[in-house]
Amino acid sequence: MARPVIGLLTDFGTKDHYAGTMKGVALGICPEAACVDITHEIPPHDILAGALELAASYKYFPPASVFLVVVDPGVGSSRRAIAAEAGAYQFVAPDNGILTLVFRDAPPRRVVELTARRYARPTVSRTFEGRDRFAPAAAWLAKGIDLSGLGRALTSWQQLAVPEQVVGETEIVADVPNVDRRTFARFAGGGDIEIVAGTQAVGTVVATYADAAPGSLCALCGSSEYLEVAVNGGSAAERLALARGARITISRTRHPAPGTKD
Amino acid sequence: MARPVIGLLTDFGTKDHYAGTMKGVALGICPEAACVDITHEIPPHDILAGALELAASYKYFPPASVFLVVVDPGVGSSRRAIAAEAGAYQFVAPDNGILTLVFRDAPPRRVVELTARRYARPTVSRTFEGRDRFAPAAAWLAKGIDLSGLGRALTSWQQLAVPEQVVGETEIVADVPNVDRRTFARFAGGGDIEIVAGTQAVGTVVATYADAAPGSLCALCGSSEYLEVAVNGGSAAERLALARGARITISRTRHPAPGTKD
Amino acid sequence: MARPVIGLLTDFGTKDHYAGTMKGVALGICPEAACVDITHEIPPHDILAGALELAASYKYFPPASVFLVVVDPGVGSSRRAIAAEAGAYQFVAPDNGILTLVFRDAPPRRVVELTARRYARPTVSRTFEGRDRFAPAAAWLAKGIDLSGLGRALTSWQQLAVPEQVVGETEIVADVPNVDRRTFARFAGGGDIEIVAGTQAVGTVVATYADAAPGSLCALCGSSEYLEVAVNGGSAAERLALARGARITISRTRHPAPGTKD
Repeated sequence: MARPVIGLLTDFGTKDHYAGTMKGVALGICPEAACVDITHEIPPHDILAGALELAASYKYFPPASVFLVVVDPGVGSSRRAIAAEAGAYQFVAPDNGILTLVFRDAPPRRVVELTARRYARPTVSRTFEGRDRFAPAAAWLAKGIDLSGLGRALTSWQQLAVPEQVVGETEIVADVPNVDRRTFARFAGGGDIEIVAGTQAVGTVVATYADAAPGSLCALCGSSEYLEVAVNGGSAAERLALARGARITISRTRHPAPGTKD
Repeated sequence: MARPVIGLLTDFGTKDHYAGTMKGVALGICPEAACVDITHEIPPHDILAGALELAASYKYFPPASVFLVVVDPGVGSSRRAIAAEAGAYQFVAPDNGILTLVFRDAPPRRVVELTARRYARPTVSRTFEGRDRFAPAAAWLAKGIDLSGLGRALTSWQQLAVPEQVVGETEIVADVPNVDRRTFARFAGGGDIEIVAGTQAVGTVVATYADAAPGSLCALCGSSEYLEVAVNGGSAAERLALARGARITISRTRHPAPGTKD
Repeated sequence: MARPVIGLLTDFGTKDHYAGTMKGVALGICPEAACVDITHEIPPHDILAGALELAASYKYFPPASVFLVVVDPGVGSSRRAIAAEAGAYQFVAPDNGILTLVFRDAPPRRVVELTARRYARPTVSRTFEGRDRFAPAAAWLAKGIDLSGLGRALTSWQQLAVPEQVVGETEIVADVPNVDRRTFARFAGGGDIEIVAGTQAVGTVVATYADAAPGSLCALCGSSEYLEVAVNGGSAAERLALARGARITISRTRHPAPGTKD
């Protein structure tokens, strides 16, 4: 069996011991695991930001990787803790919708609630379930137990209200989900387009940052397959002063030629 | 033998190569080790902060883990470098008291000074002993050498002056050791209490953050078994403007009922 | 065979998933690798800063380690991607001069351009070659393929214009390459010297930080074998307000006694 990988994504930051402690717990259960930090710097309690970061990264991990996802404003409350199997991967997370974007890509085959006490630490802190419930569950999955061992099967779970994209014939209108790095519409088609971010026209659509004039506002299809509005050598977020929820309008001004491929 | 774990805790930050270089050195000696960052963001030279972070995390690591602890204002001076065995763990650190809180939990069975030159790098920099002395010693312990091989046995070592807790019948008075996340007294008992942090009354004692009204000041028994003063969705440190050494007074206003357990 | 080590050095930061995604890709190819972060906080696009950090750390890693170096202002442009063998190590990087200082220490035996498509991901994003081209190449090297498999041999590559050191009989004049931690001249000789950083005289040359009076400006031979200008317990960069390119003058006022060694 390949060496198991546990990918960690949290809003814990790296100033405190929290992420390290979760890895300590996980290695006690599954010593052969490779623990890989995706990031611990999701803005505190920002479930949508966590969902976007996870969706942008998980599919580049080896099949059978387990993701330990803890952005959990409801820690200690009655919100459920879940584990899920989707695509070639397994996920452990609070049931707060943070897996919504993963599940869009790869509809979950099985979702369970983490109810089996023997796969949690003997005492579960109400302020640090990451250590006492989520990390052990992820480590046991990495060790090879079947998902069904972790608890009772669920048929429904929380879904995140992701900013809608209105995709029309000639226009995509969407809200900014993640100001710094991407806008929204998966970028498609070979026609000419016009982009307005907030109230400002984005000059050119380029293939890579270096193709834009230094300091100029441009748009490109970034590595996460989202359209990004960027400034070559600068910050589009700062330049445009866009907040989450700001409106981006993408208008197609010329249709792609027949047979044009992406 | 289980895969050895080396937990790292320093004040090196992550901007520079220092932590990575220590891991490079360690893996050259013990390639099978799993290196786990606890944190590298202890405030520079803040031994007490390092001691608290270590005490809050080490016991969640697998038995036989080795901790490489480098918060070392005296690097290159005549302060000693030590290794210790305490509980199920081993520790390598400067002899500056950073292990004080671990040793309270788990009195050390053996402490040695790192005097054996063959377990250090051939040249020991006077400004980066982490790389040249501490990392190799930790890696050799992870590889399985006996602690006694690292140097001569010690019978005394530095102890940190930890802010005192005055635990009376109805009151605990303590100084803030770590403003953001915890106060001091291990929280005990089932009676009613009143908490004053600095000059401000803390409204409620709750079981988890989500139980407090958003934005309200509350106290809870955090995951590290310290009492924390917190603001649901905010920062108690900012709200109270407490510095280390500020006074917290916890008064018991009703004794726990007989037979009540934590 | 020893467990392979992949050392990562980028300017990606740790807020985003990028570094973690590269490790996910690498572990899919070489599951037994130990991925070690050197740093991901090189200032964006600062090739010289990356070169200095790499030069200060690589030689402490185990022989046969592979370095995955991505500071890449030209991502997606026509700049080449290369792999190199130098000393006991292998390196994967954009061909922008970031290996210049490594190559000074250890002239490369072989350099190839990453042209072999089978060692890249099937689709190579023009904005994230780290994930699609560099990480796979590094992982394949870690797995043991021969460097020549990655692409066609090169006989020339980009070299960085490193700030010159003018080393005279009694004076070294150099520009500040890395304001915070080091100046430039490898510190040599046992004579008396005078140092002027910008326009300010540096009081004393010491062996370690603790030897200088708290708050005083001093110079010392740091762990990276560069001369550092430092403030004991403070920041020399802040104190002196030196920018990169500032001038440091080191004058020898007394020659070392004959036979004195470093």
